[in-house]
Amino acid sequence: MAPILLDCMGTEPSEYIEQAQYVKNPHLDSMEEDILYHFSLGTKTHDLPAMFGDIKFVCVGGSANRMRAFAQFMHEQLELPGDVDDIRDICEGTDRYSMYKVGHVLSISHGMGVPSISIMLHELIKLLYHARCRDVILFRIGTSGGIGLAPGTVVITDKAVDSFFRAQFEQVVLGKVIIRSTELDEGVAKELLHCSTELSDFPTVIGNTMCTHDFYEGQGRLDGALCSFSTEEKLEYLRNAHEAGVRNIEMESTVFAAMCRVCNLKAAVICVTLLNRFEGDQISTPHDVLVEYQQRPQVLVAHFIKKQLGLHT
Amino acid sequence: MAPILLDCMGTEPSEYIEQAQYVKNPHLDSMEEDILYHFSLGTKTHDLPAMFGDIKFVCVGGSANRMRAFAQFMHEQLELPGDVDDIRDICEGTDRYSMYKVGHVLSISHGMGVPSISIMLHELIKLLYHARCRDVILFRIGTSGGIGLAPGTVVITDKAVDSFFRAQFEQVVLGKVIIRSTELDEGVAKELLHCSTELSDFPTVIGNTMCTHDFYEGQGRLDGALCSFSTEEKLEYLRNAHEAGVRNIEMESTVFAAMCRVCNLKAAVICVTLLNRFEGDQISTPHDVLVEYQQRPQVLVAHFIKKQLGLHT
Repeated sequence: MAPILLDCMGTEPSEYIEQAQYVKNPHLDSMEEDILYHFSLGTKTHDLPAMFGDIKFVCVGGSANRMRAFAQFMHEQLELPGDVDDIRDICEGTDRYSMYKVGHVLSISHGMGVPSISIMLHELIKLLYHARCRDVILFRIGTSGGIGLAPGTVVITDKAVDSFFRAQFEQVVLGKVIIRSTELDEGVAKELLHCSTELSDFPTVIGNTMCTHDFYEGQGRLDGALCSFSTEEKLEYLRNAHEAGVRNIEMESTVFAAMCRVCNLKAAVICVTLLNRFEGDQISTPHDVLVEYQQRPQVLVAHFIKKQLGLHT
Repeated sequence: MAPILLDCMGTEPSEYIEQAQYVKNPHLDSMEEDILYHFSLGTKTHDLPAMFGDIKFVCVGGSANRMRAFAQFMHEQLELPGDVDDIRDICEGTDRYSMYKVGHVLSISHGMGVPSISIMLHELIKLLYHARCRDVILFRIGTSGGIGLAPGTVVITDKAVDSFFRAQFEQVVLGKVIIRSTELDEGVAKELLHCSTELSDFPTVIGNTMCTHDFYEGQGRLDGALCSFSTEEKLEYLRNAHEAGVRNIEMESTVFAAMCRVCNLKAAVICVTLLNRFEGDQISTPHDVLVEYQQRPQVLVAHFIKKQLGLHT
């Protein structure tokens, strides 16, 4: 494959400026200070270019513990000096998100659901802008419910679709609905699939990912506090989703894809399935099995990053 | 006022069963086990009636640290025995939510945004059902942006409205949109306002609360990674909101009100405003002032609870 990172290293300064402009907000340049409130960082209180200027890969996921574990795993994979236990949370001034930096890799938690990840993405994209980063690739590594797949299968997202199977995200701006495309980077997805064949540790597929705003009623679960539908109605909805190419369901992919696309950031979504929703709703898999499943997207993305950095033989 | 809790204590068993049925899901009774996955609790692994049967008040808020601080504060206010540092996180098996119990009070974090709080509410309402709780009142104590109010003002929510100023919540169920009312309990709101006059420590008003799914574009902020509107367009939207009775903006109130209403749970939303959105978008108030602001909804709700429990003179 063509190493995406190395390919871009010879670009001229003029191209740099064009590419680096991840933000799309004319007001930002007139602000004296920019406080990234939910990160507890700011342009006056922190030297963002010095702290983050060399970032090339950003990995985001829901759980703070999992994103710390991923940072420690990447530290080992990149054979960086120092102790993994010394990797500190850059956002320790707040409990909204956690952030860890290991070499060219940033690992951030985003909580659950579209609103939670969207706050993080706004501040992350401004951070990359203020730090003058370039040629950054974003990965969401998460967990999901599978449709017609064995639990533990990793799904690389082709298109992120909404509850109506449309590849779009509806953003409300000043009380008006704006539609944004949720297309992800095809080249990165294909290269990730290629990486999975090199690893051959676990089943990996490319498929559509449905993003819902609710875990229970919104995903057709029968086990929430509220449920007004039958088992057969649930299964019909899941079968329709499967026919529309949906292979897994989670809660952040559409806004992640939409914002990265608008901001010229290459992005991919890689989620492991914890259960097959055709067979149930409850996550009753033993804890140690779940822990191993959750490492799979991490292993795949680590392999991709190492190849990009030329660390593979 | 009529103490809501004490009024209900004399109900007969038949009334108990009718009132306690907070869940609205015929499938639950046929489940052999119910795993509350995001709490790391379950009906087979935990004795939920013994652990939670005496809960009368549930307070929820976004930040885990803030909800631990609230539990410690309530422990002092209720003059309970033991050390506040010994109050442990009941959900320590997961980092999705944090949960603390002090006497009849449960304090839980819910993260940011409608999807995050809705997962928590599904599992909380099932927990109250499994634990056979009765006569429970829920409070959301949070932070918000104010409209036309001095920072630090506490807003008790009259109606929770969406980005179009409608007192409703749209829930997607199996790909179909269902509309739910977001009316909150009028009696609890009025009693909370009465409590604020007894405290007279900080300004408190009753007003409508707008719930958005995005902190930046969705709330008309000029300082996100994306912004396509002018300062004047932003101010016009906020003025329209103000005319519709909106006094503050946050990101969880509509689904909180809608789910509590459907499930027969009395509920109130109490948020402090951190800034006046007519005057800016960035939260630049010093940390210690913000900390004091965030305690105000806690102080108000603690006063309410103590009165309900007959602990006031």
